[in-house]
Amino acid sequence: MTTAPVRTDLYAQVQHFYAHQMQALDGGRFEEYAATFTPGGSFQHSPGAEPAVGRAGIVHELVEFHKRFEGDPVQRRHWFNHIALEPQPDGSVRSTVYALVVTVRPGGKPEIAPSCVVHDVLEVDGEGVLLRSRLVTHDQMF
Amino acid sequence: MTTAPVRTDLYAQVQHFYAHQMQALDGGRFEEYAATFTPGGSFQHSPGAEPAVGRAGIVHELVEFHKRFEGDPVQRRHWFNHIALEPQPDGSVRSTVYALVVTVRPGGKPEIAPSCVVHDVLEVDGEGVLLRSRLVTHDQMF
Amino acid sequence: MTTAPVRTDLYAQVQHFYAHQMQALDGGRFEEYAATFTPGGSFQHSPGAEPAVGRAGIVHELVEFHKRFEGDPVQRRHWFNHIALEPQPDGSVRSTVYALVVTVRPGGKPEIAPSCVVHDVLEVDGEGVLLRSRLVTHDQMF
Repeated sequence: MTTAPVRTDLYAQVQHFYAHQMQALDGGRFEEYAATFTPGGSFQHSPGAEPAVGRAGIVHELVEFHKRFEGDPVQRRHWFNHIALEPQPDGSVRSTVYALVVTVRPGGKPEIAPSCVVHDVLEVDGEGVLLRSRLVTHDQMF
Repeated sequence: MTTAPVRTDLYAQVQHFYAHQMQALDGGRFEEYAATFTPGGSFQHSPGAEPAVGRAGIVHELVEFHKRFEGDPVQRRHWFNHIALEPQPDGSVRSTVYALVVTVRPGGKPEIAPSCVVHDVLEVDGEGVLLRSRLVTHDQMF
Repeated sequence: MTTAPVRTDLYAQVQHFYAHQMQALDGGRFEEYAATFTPGGSFQHSPGAEPAVGRAGIVHELVEFHKRFEGDPVQRRHWFNHIALEPQPDGSVRSTVYALVVTVRPGGKPEIAPSCVVHDVLEVDGEGVLLRSRLVTHDQMF
């Protein structure tokens, strides 16, 4: 195998997109996170979950999900690694990425779990990157 | 949100700068680390600490800090993730980065703590990247 | 120090090469992993091990190594960080990279060990990237 060369500018844009996107999520800026999806984009944070569709739906899903942390001063950080891109015939880009969730509570050590794989379909144009869909699979569930 | 496109060459230079810089720090090459700052650069490794200013001051701070590891054959590795850049009006670049410190002792498993956010201001020109200032915040202290 | 500027396209290609390569390894696609080496490439996964040489030899080494996981439904993920490149006089590129191995078993939390440093020599041309040699050192063994 020789890995097919990636467009250099595309690779940098996607890395930077993920950096801003995940800092928005971990900062609790859910509308900013939702706005990284296309208007009809879908977000499925685990294979068993119903996908949230559209930006309002994604914000709603995140608000619901984070109720479990009410009264729990938790800081979560989503780490990404090994972004593998595959351009698709329709012009979109499939992106497969490792993810680990780092969870910190006051006085505690970081917990690092779960280990996930993020399966994204990206739409890229001169304006930037948007997510058409995201499915997150968990390594615990195999 | 569409993340503002990043200059591709800038993004690669900053990633590469961090790779060399942190390998220098973890290798105990403090003068090499200090030389990644501007001559008047400031380094504050936690919000409560007094910032070290200037390269000699940064080396001094690192030597002092590492006295805690005397007689302790520890290997530390500073991991970075999600480099988010924001060009500033004065030509500098603000860089916000996740960090985890991996600590290994002989016969032990890696300890991964603390979880931090690195807040850098970078000066970039045709010659390369230099750090004007670095403030590290810790997730435990919120 | 000013880190020598890296060729932007080279840096993106190497990152992308590692992403595909490690997803192949962790997916158990050993022939795909071996094909990321030059025909006479060598792979030494720890300093004490005999290096495997050539693609067939590398596949054999991986099959042997993974026998320890027979009947053990383990998912491993090799994370990389801080890719530092140094072009060599003969046109090859030395690449020094941090690595952590994430190991997940059903119902368990990820174990993150060992912490390693990957020492690669890369051959790069218009076709892509190939590995001439890889030596992995472990932080536990110092």
